[in-house]
Parts: sequence; structure tokens; C-alpha cells
Amino acid sequence: MLDKHQKKLREIAKYLRYFALKMSTKAGSGHPTSSLSAADLMAVLLANHYRYDFKNPDNIYNDRLIFSKGHATPLYYAMFAAMGVISLKDLDSYRKFGSSLEGHPTPNFKFAEAATGSLGQGLSVGVGLALSLKAKLKEAESKELPSRFTLHASRYLLPLVYVLLGDGEMAEGNVWEAANIASYYRLDNLVAILDVNRLGQSQETSLGWDIHKYSDRFQSFGWETKVIDGHDYDEIANAFRQVQSSKFKVQNQRPFAIIAKTVKGKGVSFLENKDGWHGKPVPAEMFEKALQELGEVDMKMRWKVEKPLESSKYHVVSRKQSINNLATNYLLHTTYIKGDQIATRKAYGEALSRIGVQYQNVVSLDGDVKNSTYSEIFKANFPERFFEMFIAEQNMVGTAVGMARLGFIPFVSTFAAFLTRAFDQIRMASVGGANIKFCGSHAGVSIGEDGPSQMGLEDIAMFRSVFGCSVLYPADAVATDKLVEEMVKIRGMSYIRTTRPATPVIYDVDEEFSIGGCKIHKSPKLPKTPKNKIIIIAAGITLYEALNAQEELSKEGIEAIVVDCYSIKPIAEKTLKDLVTHTFKGQTLKGMLITVEDHYFEGGLGDAVLNVFACDEKVKVYKMAVTKKPRSGKSDELLDFEEISAKAIVKKVKSLN
Amino acid sequence: MLDKHQKKLREIAKYLRYFALKMSTKAGSGHPTSSLSAADLMAVLLANHYRYDFKNPDNIYNDRLIFSKGHATPLYYAMFAAMGVISLKDLDSYRKFGSSLEGHPTPNFKFAEAATGSLGQGLSVGVGLALSLKAKLKEAESKELPSRFTLHASRYLLPLVYVLLGDGEMAEGNVWEAANIASYYRLDNLVAILDVNRLGQSQETSLGWDIHKYSDRFQSFGWETKVIDGHDYDEIANAFRQVQSSKFKVQNQRPFAIIAKTVKGKGVSFLENKDGWHGKPVPAEMFEKALQELGEVDMKMRWKVEKPLESSKYHVVSRKQSINNLATNYLLHTTYIKGDQIATRKAYGEALSRIGVQYQNVVSLDGDVKNSTYSEIFKANFPERFFEMFIAEQNMVGTAVGMARLGFIPFVSTFAAFLTRAFDQIRMASVGGANIKFCGSHAGVSIGEDGPSQMGLEDIAMFRSVFGCSVLYPADAVATDKLVEEMVKIRGMSYIRTTRPATPVIYDVDEEFSIGGCKIHKSPKLPKTPKNKIIIIAAGITLYEALNAQEELSKEGIEAIVVDCYSIKPIAEKTLKDLVTHTFKGQTLKGMLITVEDHYFEGGLGDAVLNVFACDEKVKVYKMAVTKKPRSGKSDELLDFEEISAKAIVKKVKSLN
Repeated sequence: MLDKHQKKLREIAKYLRYFALKMSTKAGSGHPTSSLSAADLMAVLLANHYRYDFKNPDNIYNDRLIFSKGHATPLYYAMFAAMGVISLKDLDSYRKFGSSLEGHPTPNFKFAEAATGSLGQGLSVGVGLALSLKAKLKEAESKELPSRFTLHASRYLLPLVYVLLGDGEMAEGNVWEAANIASYYRLDNLVAILDVNRLGQSQETSLGWDIHKYSDRFQSFGWETKVIDGHDYDEIANAFRQVQSSKFKVQNQRPFAIIAKTVKGKGVSFLENKDGWHGKPVPAEMFEKALQELGEVDMKMRWKVEKPLESSKYHVVSRKQSINNLATNYLLHTTYIKGDQIATRKAYGEALSRIGVQYQNVVSLDGDVKNSTYSEIFKANFPERFFEMFIAEQNMVGTAVGMARLGFIPFVSTFAAFLTRAFDQIRMASVGGANIKFCGSHAGVSIGEDGPSQMGLEDIAMFRSVFGCSVLYPADAVATDKLVEEMVKIRGMSYIRTTRPATPVIYDVDEEFSIGGCKIHKSPKLPKTPKNKIIIIAAGITLYEALNAQEELSKEGIEAIVVDCYSIKPIAEKTLKDLVTHTFKGQTLKGMLITVEDHYFEGGLGDAVLNVFACDEKVKVYKMAVTKKPRSGKSDELLDFEEISAKAIVKKVKSLN
Repeated sequence: MLDKHQKKLREIAKYLRYFALKMSTKAGSGHPTSSLSAADLMAVLLANHYRYDFKNPDNIYNDRLIFSKGHATPLYYAMFAAMGVISLKDLDSYRKFGSSLEGHPTPNFKFAEAATGSLGQGLSVGVGLALSLKAKLKEAESKELPSRFTLHASRYLLPLVYVLLGDGEMAEGNVWEAANIASYYRLDNLVAILDVNRLGQSQETSLGWDIHKYSDRFQSFGWETKVIDGHDYDEIANAFRQVQSSKFKVQNQRPFAIIAKTVKGKGVSFLENKDGWHGKPVPAEMFEKALQELGEVDMKMRWKVEKPLESSKYHVVSRKQSINNLATNYLLHTTYIKGDQIATRKAYGEALSRIGVQYQNVVSLDGDVKNSTYSEIFKANFPERFFEMFIAEQNMVGTAVGMARLGFIPFVSTFAAFLTRAFDQIRMASVGGANIKFCGSHAGVSIGEDGPSQMGLEDIAMFRSVFGCSVLYPADAVATDKLVEEMVKIRGMSYIRTTRPATPVIYDVDEEFSIGGCKIHKSPKLPKTPKNKIIIIAAGITLYEALNAQEELSKEGIEAIVVDCYSIKPIAEKTLKDLVTHTFKGQTLKGMLITVEDHYFEGGLGDAVLNVFACDEKVKVYKMAVTKKPRSGKSDELLDFEEISAKAIVKKVKSLN
């Protein structure tokens, strides 16, 4: 016999199943069977445990829910309908152009914590949320509620981050990166709910229904686990209760995984546990039959989720905070002197540290190369705002997405080459509109002896292709410093590329740099009647090569105007066009422009410049870039080998004249 | 008391340590401390177990060795010196420009099984080698040695693939993707040797010296494990013996992990277990002191590694095999008929299947989307040559690298969007010169309702930036079919992009397509005196939009010449230039050229075309691409929304006229 509460749970689950089926059939696409398997789990969660104040989504005491199995949107949106947050009419717009109810969650749907749908990323976002909530609660509880709060009350109020995972995505390494970090940071406010419905898209998963293996894996990664039948309300409710009580184990704080054995398509006999139904709605002609099996559904049913017992004004970290009570040894201004030798990677670490004073929601994440990217300088100054993410770039980016969602401004740093490891996560961060900043150090062949595996040579191409992401590549410490500050000021994604070798400071400390800007370096010594003119566009390490070439060329009567194109996306389109017009005015022959970059030929600075002059009549563009397979060697040898050195530029210019 | 053999082991280890220190100090860079921790493990391996015929590296009975911790090259190359394969003089060239002894292993060093150095990838390569060796041995033993071979002998001869891993890289999800697949495929010929020296680059790893946790993790992923002291020769030797005997557990075939607790910098007291020594050679002034601690080294010592007991002529799979005895239902020729509606993704599956008959070393790997990429057609025809890699793209690519090393031609398929997951692995495959082919399906906004998480919109930019990789984007089934065959014929990396919706066949079955080619579609109906001419360059789904626009424009007296630019890299530079010259001959105004693509604005077809005309005086290039944040909707709605539809092209052309 079912008790009253169990009957209610059953009603909720039926409701969720009904609308999951209906939405997808109406849309003509979608993933109902993947939704049906998790309907009972989600019914119990929202009925018994989920606490959320929909009028105050920023309340830090709200629980959080992420569908890492982002394709299960029919279930996801049905839950919000059941909670009375969206209407049944809203559900009818599912997957339609212009609707916020997209095929996979995106921030167009207000309550989506992140864009998901590329599998195996949600747990990392959960790590980011859980880490952030802990940090914010600590701050709030220390400042706001000191007397009222006992440890017990604090644990009781601790909001939980629930992540629904599919079993198919457990093959993604990203999940295990997240699992490792979650236990390392003792995230007992993180709950993975694993929907083991056995069937992937095209066949059985590698572990099938071997739920204990999943449990063993989570346990070996430091998690507490509970294995249950995902359709048994008693077992589900017990598991969630165990999660709640687990919060009080303050000596042994562990993230919690509920491993639920489920049936894909559960509730409709002809869908249940059948191959070939992944990502397929029930055809219209079979729809009635499916509904009959579900039984009568109370369309008007709503389940009002309880609000958290507390709220806090600390839910939004103010971006600029008072700097009155700062320690005096913090640098508030750039202090480099022209001629100083300093690597831009080091200037990055110093800049991050400097702006960290003013922007107290800046946090830094690094993949065990903080002594190479120099994020260690930030760590030294703000240990509580630095997060070592170890050698796991995918999770690092996903975690940053979660942290950005809660108002932090994460700076993610590692070698430029290793950011390619997280391209999918970076892409998804862009889909989710995350306010994240990236720093890739050790760009180009100029790193030298370590060889091609460590050289970032595709990173500009990668970040240029990321929707809405700026790409910056400063040459000296001053430019780096100023641009890092610009990155913080402008909301959205941006990428800064830094160089391994030390390079001289060439700009005055009060020089201004902006995203979308560039600097023009005219030839200092020039014959009165130059034989010819040329424009050389460079950035980062090649700016020095271009400036050296400029000097050499001026000796030969060629005026080379060098552009420091430190902002590759957006590029200083107007300035560059004006420069070309002005430079080649009155010249009968077409003007000549050379781009030179320490990056592969495709997708980098050269291509960005080509876009500026795509319709221009006045100039020919010649690209110099890395075109031979790079290898170990000295920095200078490699710049020469790849023909992007001053020597090569001079040779190229002469060949064109 | 050490017995004679143990003394020998100690001598070998001392030799390895000596040269690891010397090479890096001489080079002025490198990772000696990471080498010293694994020296004893490697000494025992090469002295007791490693079997390799250096005169016949292709012998399938050779063991294989991968340094996943690729930075430990001082140890790696010292081993080859100890085995007498390279000279002490060779070691002196370490990290010098032009030397094959690079900072991290690349194929410039003949015996490197793969390029490593981006951490966490080596075990996947090991999976690929182990899978391939099993497949080849099965073939060899069935054909070559049927009578002599008992099961026992076969197990005894089974060559092993050893992968040396660092503990830092165990945080990489890629490792766990590989671990999962290794146990799924019961790779009892795969041996992970984990060098747990506790220290990462910048601090202690997340698990430190908690070696049993590593063991638990491997076990939970289905591996047999042995925890040892990595500097105790008895324990090391026992572990390797256990690996050998484990091969005979034919009922429970599991990969084997030796988890060795080691000391970073072992053998030199001032380096041992010290932070701050990662990636740093011993300075010249401290070098003598380090050597003193090692004690006297026998420079002339060599350890001749035993050859395998068998060799096989099956080590090289012939590329073309007799097709006499084929089943008659195999398609040997393309059979599409103009006007047929067929998605290029389906044509890909059919093409792969067709060429699979002729090219018997073609294998197919897919990430649980084989019913979407249509690699399932290949699986249906060649089940033994299809490898389900589940939702783990990073390992899929690494595995393909291993398989390519042993002569297979892997076709790796998944959604174009999800190939971004493996950018680092793809990049490293290129560093390693691997002969791998990629297929990305569901490209662009044309996939429709599933939304941006599933849309490949950065893939062309990504693959264009990969050194030496071709990028193909056919519009119809015939083009797809022909290009898949071209991909097999030409050694090296290539990428083919396919479309989700069905599109009409527009080419005759005997039309020829080549990498680097394009097709010109002149306007079929044209007014005798066209008002104006324009060239429209498209590929894939947008070719149809361009052709529809062409028709519309011809009604208005505008001649639009449409180019099917199916080969984006290399691009048909000469043909395009000639076309422009010919088209706009005698015209006073500059010619106009439009590119239109279902890809983000940066890095795609448009940029490839810009490169062709970078120095051209005769043409202005206008790019049309995806520039608004994509979302769910119908395919047509989205092409319109992004202004890459026929309607948008017509509008654009008119605005230019």
C-alpha cells in the first residue's frame, strides 16, 4: 500500500512523464526516453528536498540543479512546470525558434545554471557552484550571522548542488576530473545523481547495469555513495535523506553520489529498456497508447518548492570594494620601467595580483603550472581566492563556469597548448555566456627546447572561433598589465596569450591599451626620401622581431611602419584601414603589408588582418607564420627556422621590393 | 646482500641516472628529477622483461614502450643508450636544434611509439597499440602458425605494451577514459607503470603518496594492480613477474597497473623529494656533487635486450588486398543517382563501408553516435574492424594514434562539435605524424532543434589550424563518397565534415573529386547580357543555398557563378584565381566574391578564401557566416536567422550591386 506522500510522488512523476512525452512528440524531436528514466528521481527531489526561492534566484541558500545529461530537457522543463515556475503554454514552445526552452539547456532559460548538452561537463559546473557557495557562505556567515549560527545550523542550512548525470557520459574523463577535485576540496554540498538506464545512444554503455562498478569508482575517487533502485520511492527518499544527514559529517566531508538503477523509457512498455529509442519522440500515432499506459494525469497539479530557511545579502559579491583597509604593500599601479626585461607571463601574474586588490571577486584557477604561468603571484597574495585545479584542464574550465555563475570572475591559466584540451568546455562556456577569462602561456615556437608538444600554435585560431571571445596578445609587461585590467572590466569571455622568454618593456607606464586597439611604431631613424614603404603587423614576441627588422630596413632606405596588433579579436579595423590609406596615399603601386606571428599559418593574426582588408583596394597582404613542423631548439633558432625572425622579415621585405 | 643480478640492476639504474643528469645539465633544460624517480622501474623492465628486435621494429611480437610522462626524456633516451641503440654522442645532442632527441618524444626519434608531452595521453596510445597487436596476432596466428601454437604458447608470446605514467597526469580525465576502455576490451597485454613520486610541477599532487588510492581507482576501473616500492628491486621484479603470469588468466583478462611509490630526484640527496626542482637541470656547479652521490658509473655498460621468440610476416598489413573472394553484396562503386535525397553523413558511412572492402586496414572508431554519424554501416559490414569507443573522445583519438602506429588507417567519427573535446589529442596526433582520418557530423546550425551544444561551428577553424591536416566539406553523397576514398589514399591527417539533413545528389556518379579541388557551377539560365557578375563560394549545406540564390539572381539579370569549395584545406588556389581573372576580365570595377558557410565567422571557409586573394587586385571578398548566437529552431529558420540562406545571399548580392 502506498501512503499519501508516496501517492503524491507518484502523481508528480506521472506529471513529469506526461509532459516529457507530450513536449517531445509535439516538437517532433527530443529525448523522452532519457527523461522517463529519471522522472522518479526528480519527482522525489523536488517534492522532498529541493529548496529554492524563485523570486530570489541569487539567494546563496538556494539549492542548485544541473542536468549534466542536457538532452533530458523534456523532464527538466516539465519539472519547472510542476513547480509552477513556467506555464503549460511555455512547454508548448519547446524546441521552437525563439523559445527559451531549447533542445538542450542554455541561459536563455533563466534557471539553467549552465549550458549543457555536450556530455560529461555538468559535474564540473557543479564543482564550481559548490566551491563558490562554500566560499560565499563562509563569508556571509562570518560577517552577517555570527551569533545566531551554530555549526549545526550552518550545516543544516548548507545548500546542495544536485547534478543529474547519465550513465553514458560516465565514460567521459571530464567526469572523473571533477570527481577527483570534488573530493580534494571536500565538497559535501555536491550531490551526483546517476541515472543508470543502461542504454547509450547507439548501444549498451560499457558498464551496462553494473551499478556497483559505478559505486566502486565514485568511492575510489573519495565519494560517499548509495546504490538504489531509481524507481522505488522508498529507496530514493532514503538516499536523499542520507545525503542530508551526510552534511553533518564534518570530520569526513565527502561529495555524495546516488547511483540509481533505472529503466530507459520507464512507464511506457514499448519504450522500456529498448534499443533504438534514444533521441526519438513517440510518434503521434503511438502517443495515445503511451498516455494510456501512464494513466490519468492531473494537469493542474503544482508542487510549490520550499524556500530556503535563510537568505543573505551576500549573494552578490560587489565588483569593486573599498580599498581603504588594504595592506600597503599591494601594488595598485603599474610600475614597469622601459628597458626592463620581463616576460609577459610574469607580468600577467603581477597584473592579476594587482587587480585582485580592487576586484575582490577575481579568482584564479591553474592546472599545476602556476610557477610557469605566474598565477602563483596571485596565490601568494590571495591564497583563499586561488584554486589549484591540478592537471585537469577540462574540469578547470567547467569549474570556472560554475564560479562565474555565482558572480566570481575566474582567470583560468595554463600553457596555451593545454587550453586546447578544454576546447569543448570553452565552447560550451561561450554557449552559456560565461564571464570567464583565459590566459595561455608559453605561446609559439619561442618557448624553445621543450618542443612542439608544449608550444601553443593553434590557440589564436581556437579562441578566435569562440563566439564572443576577445583575443589579446601583448608584447610587453605594460601592455599585459593594462589588458588584464581591461579583461576584468569588460564582461564576457576573453583570452590573453603570454610569452615564455623575457622581453624588454617598450611602453611607458601610462600608455593606454584597450580591447580593440593597436599601437603604431613608426621608424625612428629614416632617410629623408625613403625608397619605399611597408607596413608590418606583429604581436607578442614577433613585435620585437618586427622592430628589429624596421631598424635594419631603415638602413636600406625602406620605411617600415610596425603595428603592435595586441588585440587580435576584436581587431583595430578602423585604425589599420586609416593607416593603410595614409601610408600609401599618392603611391601608384599597391601598398604592401606583412603580418608576422608565432602561430600556425591558419586562423591566427594573419587571418584576422586579412578580414580587415578583404575588400580593400589599396593593399596586398603577405603572411609570415609557422609553416614548418616545429621542433626542439633555442628560441632564436626556431624563430629563424620558421622564418618569422627579424632576419626573415628583412629578407621577405627585400624580396617584395 | 645483493645478488649478482641485483647488482647488475643497480648498475643499469646508476647508468640511467647518470646520463639523465648529464644530458639535462648539458642541455641547460629538461626534467632530470622526474627521470630519476622512474630509473629503477625502467632498469628492471629493460633488464628482465622487455623484448624488442631493434633490427625489425615492425615485428608484431616486439614489446612496446610509451613514456606518457613525456618530459622524462632524459631517462627515456638514456635507456636506448643503455640498450646500445643510440650512442653516447647522440645523447650529447639532447634538445639541440636538429637532433632527434627532442625535449619530449616525437617521431623524429625512430622508436618513439607516439609524440607525448601533453600529459595523460599515453595510456590511450597504449590502448590503441594493445588493441591492434591483439587483432594482428589473432590474424597472424590463425593464418601462419596454426599447428605449432598452443594457447599457452600464444599467451607466452603475447607482447606487452608498457606505459610509464606520472602521478600528476592521473588527474587528467583522458587517463580514466583509457582505463575504462582497456578493461572493456580486456587488454591483458597493456601494462601501466605509475611513477608516484608525489610532486607535480608546482606542488604536491592531489593524492600525494596515497598509492593505495591509485590502486583502488585502477581496480574500480577493472584493472589488476600491484602496489610496490619503486626503488626496491625485489618488489619491482616481482611486480613484472606477476604481469607475466597474469597473461595466463584467460578467463579474467585484465590490464595491469604497477603502482610504484617513488621519490622524485631519487639518488641525489639535494634533489630528493624536494619542491622547486621540477623541470630544472642540476646547475653545472652542483653537477659534480650529484655525480659523487651516484658513485662510479660504467659508461661502457650496455644491456642487450632480448628479441621476441617469434616473428611474423603479418607485421605489416598490406594496404590493398585481393578482392577476389569478396561477398558479392559489397558495393565496390558509387551508385548514387542525381536527385536522390541523402545526407552526406549517411554517404560517409556507406563510403567507409565501400572502401573497407579494398582497404582492409581501414578501421572505424566512434563515440556512441554510430547511428548518427552512420559509421554503423561500416560496423554492420566489418564488425571486427569497428571499435565502439563510447562517449570518450579524447581516448578515441589517442587509441586511433596507437592503431595508426601499427599500420591501421583509423577513421574517427563523432559529431563535429564533440571533436573539439579532443583538440589536444588531435594536435598531438599531428605532432606525431599520425595517419588518422576524422569525420565530424552534424555540422553547423543546419542541425536544427538540438541547439548550439550539438552544432559544429568551430570545427573548420580547429582542423585548419592542425599542422598538415586536410579539411574537406562535401555537399552531396557523390562528393562524400569520392573524398572518403581520397582520404584513405593520401597518407596523413584529414578531416571530413558532414551534414545532418538529407540533401539532393547533384553530381554524376563518375564526377571526380580530389583533395585540393573544387567545382564550378555556372548559372544554367542566364540573360544574354547579364547586368553584373558575382562569384559565390560555398561548401556543404550552403552550396544548396548558393545554387538557389544563383537561380533567383539570374532572374534579375545577375550572373552568379557558384563554387563548391569542398576542399577547404588545401584550397583550390589556382582554380579560384583563374576563375576570378576570367570572370572579371575587362570589367572596370573590381570583381565581387561572396563566401557563405555554416560555421562561425572566424577561421572557416571565408578565411581560407581570403588567403587565396590576399594579394589579389581584382576582387573584393565578402564573407557570410554564422554571426549571431545560434539557438534551437528548424534548419531553415536558423539558416535564415544567421543570414546564410539563399534569401540572405540574394539580399547581400543586391546590396552590393
